[in-house]
Amino acid sequence: MSAASVVHAAPLVPVLAIVGVGLIGGSFAAALRDGGAVGRVLGVGRQPSSLARARELGLIDEAVTLEQAAQQADIIFLSTPVGATETILSRLKPTLRPGTIVTDAGSTKADVVEAARAALGGHIGQFIPGHPIAGAESTGPEAADASLYRGRTVVLTPLDENTSEAKTRLTRIWESCGARVMVMDPQVHDTVLASVSHVPHLLSSVFMWQVATAHDSDIRMALAGSGFRDFTRIAAGSPEVWRDIFLANRSAVLAELQEVKAALNRAEQALQDADGEELENFLERAALARRFWGSRSGLT
Amino acid sequence: MSAASVVHAAPLVPVLAIVGVGLIGGSFAAALRDGGAVGRVLGVGRQPSSLARARELGLIDEAVTLEQAAQQADIIFLSTPVGATETILSRLKPTLRPGTIVTDAGSTKADVVEAARAALGGHIGQFIPGHPIAGAESTGPEAADASLYRGRTVVLTPLDENTSEAKTRLTRIWESCGARVMVMDPQVHDTVLASVSHVPHLLSSVFMWQVATAHDSDIRMALAGSGFRDFTRIAAGSPEVWRDIFLANRSAVLAELQEVKAALNRAEQALQDADGEELENFLERAALARRFWGSRSGLT
Repeated sequence: MSAASVVHAAPLVPVLAIVGVGLIGGSFAAALRDGGAVGRVLGVGRQPSSLARARELGLIDEAVTLEQAAQQADIIFLSTPVGATETILSRLKPTLRPGTIVTDAGSTKADVVEAARAALGGHIGQFIPGHPIAGAESTGPEAADASLYRGRTVVLTPLDENTSEAKTRLTRIWESCGARVMVMDPQVHDTVLASVSHVPHLLSSVFMWQVATAHDSDIRMALAGSGFRDFTRIAAGSPEVWRDIFLANRSAVLAELQEVKAALNRAEQALQDADGEELENFLERAALARRFWGSRSGLT
Repeated sequence: MSAASVVHAAPLVPVLAIVGVGLIGGSFAAALRDGGAVGRVLGVGRQPSSLARARELGLIDEAVTLEQAAQQADIIFLSTPVGATETILSRLKPTLRPGTIVTDAGSTKADVVEAARAALGGHIGQFIPGHPIAGAESTGPEAADASLYRGRTVVLTPLDENTSEAKTRLTRIWESCGARVMVMDPQVHDTVLASVSHVPHLLSSVFMWQVATAHDSDIRMALAGSGFRDFTRIAAGSPEVWRDIFLANRSAVLAELQEVKAALNRAEQALQDADGEELENFLERAALARRFWGSRSGLT
């Protein structure tokens, strides 16, 4: 193979459409552009100002409708609240080209699969559900970052109807963004995310709510330090997005919460009993696990 | 006043002794040095290697015994686990000079006051309890930072026996480190810290323990992202230090925990009922409060 043929080879994704050009979608486009893996990028969104900004930033080449995206794109990436999935897919379906792969970035997967089946019917094989485990406090196209997915995990929960060719292609696309792909069952995904993402968000928000509504909240806030800052950071997240996540993954979150409450009762009992040894054992197990995770995750 | 007389004026603290030269004590010494507010710095500690390192780093001028510190220092700063307070003060007492002020940096105050009364007896007026609301994940003299207290709150819980002169002097010293001083009752301090520091630490540790001991902890850890990282960061803290804090502030922590559990039960009920409006209201209140705190605290 000559150098010239490499240069002129079609990019991995000739035409990409991003539905919802914020941090997640914008970063996906930026990462593919950075790696020379994309030809043309189309953007779909409800806010013209946001699309204009995405074009100024070079994240997208053109703002289009959902119908145009369906007609033109090779890969369609949904980075919208999970509650909007069914509506969006229903609008994509009539003009969707046969070879196009549609994927998403939603935080829950079982409900997305259900919505996709309802919307796409016989075209369901073209939809591969996904969830990149990456994010940041910042939002919007300005926050888009070509390195957001580097070293991060992307979960795919493929359907029986997906072809192995399509799955391989989407895996290569994510790998070209620097991510590692894990394949799992949607239910397993949702159970695990209930544990490591949704329950912590609930606890952080409940705690923040309790402090904010206390009669002496002013003095509490005045004495809150860096531990409080870290523990409550996620509570600042979008109420609408998180309401949808909790509702979509309700039974897994409730089940996981029971486990955490049982552990909390044990710790509380040790404190009631002033059992220093039991307290220290439990604190030590937690500290060692957290330090080990921190050294492995690349996230600290 | 001529410039020369300013240059030759005695520093705010002619001789400072730091008991426990780690992040907290080392940063106090570094901040005072940075501001030209200290003459000579003595260091007391159990680990000769740590003291040698503190001297190499220029945090202390000399390593001394507790007895020598009591004889020579104008200000003695205890930055040791709160459980050690009584023993240290008992050893300082016999050689303590009348004008010397002893203060501390302990995370709980009612138990420290009790320990100080038991140890110092008639000399209790020389002890002013304190708690700088500052810290970091890092520990040891290497982590010492002259700017650690800049813009941070330092709580003093003075005793009836403290002279106003001594209280004013200690306030000036903290202000010269860039901190703002808040004066409050030790019980109020302990109640507020139970809320904004101790309960979050307990929740974070309980959660981390539950994830780490789950049968499928490997896959959970693999899918944990930046929200998990922030929420569990405090769980990596020293098990010994936190065991002491929980035991020292047991009743306030248990009382505060009841409030948080009541709030958790309400949120859980809303989720059980799939009550999206109630969920969103509660998430929104928490998010707004956290964002407001973040914009005010200077900690985000």
